Amino acid sequence: MNCIIPVAENNDFTIYNIPFGIYSHQSERRMATRIGDKVIDLFALAELGVFNGVISNNNIFKSDFLNPLIELGKPTTKKVREKIQHFFSDESNQEKINASAQKITYPIEEVTLHLPVKVGDYTDFYSSIEHATNVGTMFRDPNNALLPNWKHLPVGYHGRASSIIISGTPIHRPKGQTKPNADEPPVFGPCKLLDFELEMAFITFNGKPLGQPITTQEADEYIFGMVVFNDWSARDIQTWEYVPLGPFLSKNFASSVSPWVVTTEALEPFRVEGPEQNPTPLPYLQYSGKKNIDIQLEVFIQPENAKPTRVSVSNYKYMYWNMNQQLAHHTINGCNINTGDMMASGTISGPSPNSYGSMLELTWRGTKPIKMEDGSERKFINDFDTVSMKAYCIKDSIRVGFGEVYSKVLPAL
Amino acid sequence: MNCIIPVAENNDFTIYNIPFGIYSHQSERRMATRIGDKVIDLFALAELGVFNGVISNNNIFKSDFLNPLIELGKPTTKKVREKIQHFFSDESNQEKINASAQKITYPIEEVTLHLPVKVGDYTDFYSSIEHATNVGTMFRDPNNALLPNWKHLPVGYHGRASSIIISGTPIHRPKGQTKPNADEPPVFGPCKLLDFELEMAFITFNGKPLGQPITTQEADEYIFGMVVFNDWSARDIQTWEYVPLGPFLSKNFASSVSPWVVTTEALEPFRVEGPEQNPTPLPYLQYSGKKNIDIQLEVFIQPENAKPTRVSVSNYKYMYWNMNQQLAHHTINGCNINTGDMMASGTISGPSPNSYGSMLELTWRGTKPIKMEDGSERKFINDFDTVSMKAYCIKDSIRVGFGEVYSKVLPAL
Repeated sequence: MNCIIPVAENNDFTIYNIPFGIYSHQSERRMATRIGDKVIDLFALAELGVFNGVISNNNIFKSDFLNPLIELGKPTTKKVREKIQHFFSDESNQEKINASAQKITYPIEEVTLHLPVKVGDYTDFYSSIEHATNVGTMFRDPNNALLPNWKHLPVGYHGRASSIIISGTPIHRPKGQTKPNADEPPVFGPCKLLDFELEMAFITFNGKPLGQPITTQEADEYIFGMVVFNDWSARDIQTWEYVPLGPFLSKNFASSVSPWVVTTEALEPFRVEGPEQNPTPLPYLQYSGKKNIDIQLEVFIQPENAKPTRVSVSNYKYMYWNMNQQLAHHTINGCNINTGDMMASGTISGPSPNSYGSMLELTWRGTKPIKMEDGSERKFINDFDTVSMKAYCIKDSIRVGFGEVYSKVLPAL
Repeated sequence: MNCIIPVAENNDFTIYNIPFGIYSHQSERRMATRIGDKVIDLFALAELGVFNGVISNNNIFKSDFLNPLIELGKPTTKKVREKIQHFFSDESNQEKINASAQKITYPIEEVTLHLPVKVGDYTDFYSSIEHATNVGTMFRDPNNALLPNWKHLPVGYHGRASSIIISGTPIHRPKGQTKPNADEPPVFGPCKLLDFELEMAFITFNGKPLGQPITTQEADEYIFGMVVFNDWSARDIQTWEYVPLGPFLSKNFASSVSPWVVTTEALEPFRVEGPEQNPTPLPYLQYSGKKNIDIQLEVFIQPENAKPTRVSVSNYKYMYWNMNQQLAHHTINGCNINTGDMMASGTISGPSPNSYGSMLELTWRGTKPIKMEDGSERKFINDFDTVSMKAYCIKDSIRVGFGEVYSKVLPAL
């Protein structure tokens, strides 16, 4: 496909991508897409008439979040994306861009990117079999690493929506209760075992009324797109607090997301078969078609004033439970979903030790520290480290990617 | 205090209460308060000038949720409540009400009540020592009923905000996976052990920026008011799914709340000392002053076409961990809170068997069925049962109450 905006090799934002995000140039936030290193203002594009017949009120592009667009449903968001793609494929439109009264494109360096959606409810799954096996091996029984329910349902839990932050926002090392010594009372202080979790998250359209499940077949119609998701985790806080109701303060101090929502339409060419599921799940969790996606994932740790070290290379295709199954499970009891809900995959670990999606697994509870390029070692994340995650798909030399999510860890307040 | 609207004996909505809610008479939703059996339109009251000098834009009272009022913070909501209280204490205002161009009061039977707040994040605690002890005794070890962390921190977990519904909304019995037989695979079908949980929930003001904790001392300033909360629970789904990340589908199919938010100002006269906490909690969980509240609680089950049977009489004063401690714990890691977040207490059980806050405890896992007034028995909740919960405070013959939260259970879809 032709593209009138230049896109460098290995740039994630090709004409085949056309993601959605929120940017500001001076003060006002607006919806945008990105091609190459240009951020494209969707309101300005709308004023050119690009969305005539699709969007009746151009002002929705002047929103602080993508939610008003997502509210319109998949048939509309799909058309909006196609209109953008067609517009920038047609060389004759260069003139229109130049002549427009509104400024349409901005260099990425000149804008600020914001959280793309106002998150309604946030759910975190636990759907990588390698991750669940690693954790079970470390903390429970290597011979029975998976709990009895794990292969029968996509285990998940509710997380905190308010502390989901946009890539680039630094976080402070959380403080909390831990119990370093079994025979002594708990102590209070900064987390000592701060970790990342490499995840992907999907964002939903409005669902059905309370009480009505979404089937695996229908699920595609309720998924808008995806982002890269760093589920920050305080391992020492988690160990002490999580029984019997699950993780709470060990997770809810922050989760970082990448700024561009890549739609499922853009990801369609990269669909692959999922792993065999044995035992066969109950009928409501069965599905047909290719529901996994070949998304290459990388994690880097960059110490202050040093080069980043790549510490993990994983892939979203390893997921045992796919998004359709997650959504069908989430709603089988009648639970309702809304525009802008975010559902994360759980840590994405692959089969080999360099593909694990957390420091907990990569360093095997700190017993095998990782050597950094600057000569230092890491068991977990240090103050002033920047953790970044990249995600992209490549097939037949076509690239569609997410850019990255990164956050720097500052000392505890 | 005088009151120009008649209030019957045992009515929860005295001049000392002045709660906040959302009603509609024809189509538009508006903020309201209630005195006796009259719903009072706050926009109409504002147009009379009652909030002059306190509220600059009367249109905020025309909102679908209380959130825009709560956004203004406690100094303002406190004044709004006081202005209402003073207005209706002054007999000379009867004329103004009669002469107003806007209709100000509506009989409660003529209006529809709606969910009072748009819930941001919802958290459920587990703060009743009697409840935690009962559950631990039944499912774990009677000699070590409380888990090691329980007396050191207010255990809590995130719940689902989207499925919080207003009193009166019927629910369908949820379907899901259960494992009735340890040696056989899980099965799918309607929940067989449907339960209520008697809880109170508080609603927050906007908190501090991400990273900054709220202390137990400061917590009062961040709590707007309370509602009665029925945390519907599917016990058989819960048993199978909840390890290791906590309850998910066993809870998120519905939670019912009472329509009137009773402010902490109205509850102030009913404050009482909390129980002794031994061991002494870590400094960030210590507090001073009376932080428990003497709220009398009752639960009723009403079979179809039969009279209700009162199945539990409990009290919010039994809580081991108070709201100030819950909020301080929730934010100690820097987790941020927003206007309209809802934080529920966890099941409120008292010391005696008739004060337990769930069927699980009242019937001791179904081993001691409850005799109903119509002669039938209940181990858990049947289809077509209506469960209602009432909450009220009485001291020195002054009454402040919440009314009730009720929902009827319909068969699985």
